[in-house]
Amino acid sequence: MARSTRRSVLLGGAGAAAAGVAAGVGWAAHAASDGSVAPTSAADPGVVPFRGARQAGITTAAQDRLHFVALDVITDDPAQLRDLLTRWTRAAERMTAGAEATPIGAVGGGQWKVPEDTGEALDLEPGHLTVTIGYGPSLFDGRFGLAGRRPEALRDLPAFVGDDLDPSKSGGDLCIQACADDPQVAVHAVRNLVRMGFGIVSVRWSQLGFGRTSSTTQAQKTPRNLFGFKDGTANIKAEDAAALDEHVWVQPADVSGEAAWMAGGSYLVARRIRMHIEVWDRSPLADQEQTIGRDKKVGAPLGRDAEFDEPDFAVTGLDGGPAIPVDAHVRLAHHSNLDGVRILRRGYNFTDGSDGQGHLDAGLFFLAFVRDAHRQFVPMQRALARSDVLNEYIEHTGSALFACPPGLAADDDWGTQLFA
Amino acid sequence: MARSTRRSVLLGGAGAAAAGVAAGVGWAAHAASDGSVAPTSAADPGVVPFRGARQAGITTAAQDRLHFVALDVITDDPAQLRDLLTRWTRAAERMTAGAEATPIGAVGGGQWKVPEDTGEALDLEPGHLTVTIGYGPSLFDGRFGLAGRRPEALRDLPAFVGDDLDPSKSGGDLCIQACADDPQVAVHAVRNLVRMGFGIVSVRWSQLGFGRTSSTTQAQKTPRNLFGFKDGTANIKAEDAAALDEHVWVQPADVSGEAAWMAGGSYLVARRIRMHIEVWDRSPLADQEQTIGRDKKVGAPLGRDAEFDEPDFAVTGLDGGPAIPVDAHVRLAHHSNLDGVRILRRGYNFTDGSDGQGHLDAGLFFLAFVRDAHRQFVPMQRALARSDVLNEYIEHTGSALFACPPGLAADDDWGTQLFA
Repeated sequence: MARSTRRSVLLGGAGAAAAGVAAGVGWAAHAASDGSVAPTSAADPGVVPFRGARQAGITTAAQDRLHFVALDVITDDPAQLRDLLTRWTRAAERMTAGAEATPIGAVGGGQWKVPEDTGEALDLEPGHLTVTIGYGPSLFDGRFGLAGRRPEALRDLPAFVGDDLDPSKSGGDLCIQACADDPQVAVHAVRNLVRMGFGIVSVRWSQLGFGRTSSTTQAQKTPRNLFGFKDGTANIKAEDAAALDEHVWVQPADVSGEAAWMAGGSYLVARRIRMHIEVWDRSPLADQEQTIGRDKKVGAPLGRDAEFDEPDFAVTGLDGGPAIPVDAHVRLAHHSNLDGVRILRRGYNFTDGSDGQGHLDAGLFFLAFVRDAHRQFVPMQRALARSDVLNEYIEHTGSALFACPPGLAADDDWGTQLFA
Repeated sequence: MARSTRRSVLLGGAGAAAAGVAAGVGWAAHAASDGSVAPTSAADPGVVPFRGARQAGITTAAQDRLHFVALDVITDDPAQLRDLLTRWTRAAERMTAGAEATPIGAVGGGQWKVPEDTGEALDLEPGHLTVTIGYGPSLFDGRFGLAGRRPEALRDLPAFVGDDLDPSKSGGDLCIQACADDPQVAVHAVRNLVRMGFGIVSVRWSQLGFGRTSSTTQAQKTPRNLFGFKDGTANIKAEDAAALDEHVWVQPADVSGEAAWMAGGSYLVARRIRMHIEVWDRSPLADQEQTIGRDKKVGAPLGRDAEFDEPDFAVTGLDGGPAIPVDAHVRLAHHSNLDGVRILRRGYNFTDGSDGQGHLDAGLFFLAFVRDAHRQFVPMQRALARSDVLNEYIEHTGSALFACPPGLAADDDWGTQLFA
């Protein structure tokens, strides 16, 4: 491997010279604060730029692996929280660039010091790591003097028909979404951020995802979910700036006064959806396709030929009824049936061992970024919860909403952004 | 991507022509039974040969991802079990070659048929998938007329000091180890085999691993475990045929009479080891290195310079004591201190969400292949359980032993091999 690894970044010398931009970050974490560090994907195809107008990990070409963690703040001291967010910024930028969490790292502090990086990513590629932060409604409950800064749209999601939510897999004061090509890189990032927060934050829940279920750029092929269907064909794409502004990015007019920090950000809806794959797997192909409203093989809307053909809800099938049944998933979730509502999906498949009853505990960890969850996700999910025949096969077992702030300028950090 | 995917295999035509050997398997599952199918890694770098003197997935260059499942047999009918093992053989061979679980597959049976493949791997590469089968002691308890065929060495592991085993993560009548470059390929394989066994077998426990912790060939770099240390440096390598015969493969003289089917196989020890990473992460580097007995950065035995230097247990450190402490992990586990005992390790890191107490539930899913677990793993683990300082940081929470039969000849299958 000639490419940069965390170790060559750390050691400098010949390795660092070869590693180019990423090595610069490896040398001097604090270089970040003067804006001199701007790793670009042109310089290293394994590095996603950390700073910019938007947070990485939202429209970034979806990496294949995910580690997502929701945390609760356990200190009462706003200064501790703010300081942690500032330190997280430096560490996240470093790890994104392929460096260790701090300049001292796993072995740089001498024998009698506690290592500052846990070391399991020392020899691994940067892996297109992105670290995306979000804040839950509960963070603005007054404990930290942030009540006035809560954006109006950051309020808990309502209950939906059929929800079977586990409180231990729902909510959270904060979240970190780490996506990478290599799960060990994503796990390393989350673990080291969690570790920096000992005594300040505590893990509330955590979810690994092993297969993305959406494409976020036109170049990405549509992957399949655990029902075996292509998922996310109609997703908003990173190239569609107008659609992103309309459906994903919080606009300046959406937030005012103390909540203006959220302009340019996006709301993240997380739903842990258990799939009853054993039941699904006993259904005939026609039932599966009519439940989804798409052909299984190529992903075409029923009655059409190709994956990216627009669904035609007026077309009739052989029996004279609509080719796409009135209760099919694609019909109910389609923007034409939801007053134009669209969302940016970024979900992952998961398998979390067995359920104790002889089955695999598997499903979809649904992630979506939206401009306003209450105007987009809520009406969509209400329509689906009421009528979607897919509900026979799925169960929502976890739910959370987070406000993901905009990206950071060269001299900014998450602590200052949230508190200043 | 010009390489073969499950879909091009399925569809045949131009895709199949380009796919070469793998496409041959895709066409005709039953071709396997006449021995005409012999996919080789030379023909397709993503395909590991399924048949041979040994099962794949033991000395195969360790893939980065794992899905392991332990199953209990819930039928009383030996014929059903035997038939399932025969059907599993065909499906495992097909999926290994990049094809769907059956020739009909996800979409080949027509609208009104239940699909025979779950479809989520349709567009994915073969991914060096290996499927390895093993049989637990309980399978030979008399329910299936197999009592006489139990190899003497296939008996439950003893309890070890400090074990905190969860019965719901231990034992099992059968196991399937699926390893691949892509976790979705491994999960797909396990899921489809489990699905074929509805009413015959039931999932007892299941474990995903995201990062291998050992090299099984000389060409593989040593990866790191979640303590941040290189793990498996001293592993037996696939190129060392003499060591494999001595330590890994069951020799003909080891088994006799009805148990002779196990000659050429290997015993698989599975231990789910929870790592208390928060405690570890608070230890100074010197404590960590003296606990392991190796340098963290390059992995050299303490007192030596390079990763692959042999440990020298006589060398003294600066304080006049041994450079490698008497209770260090590498000393206790080293063959020179265990009457020559060695094992073939094939473990994986895991993170299974959170533990409900603010921490990540993370650790090492230890897998080892041995010629006789009671003569190799048991004395090693007794020495470690008694004295290893690493015990301050780890806890064994799951345990199982399986007999993995030898590989299959061209006309053989797992059902015939076990029952005939």
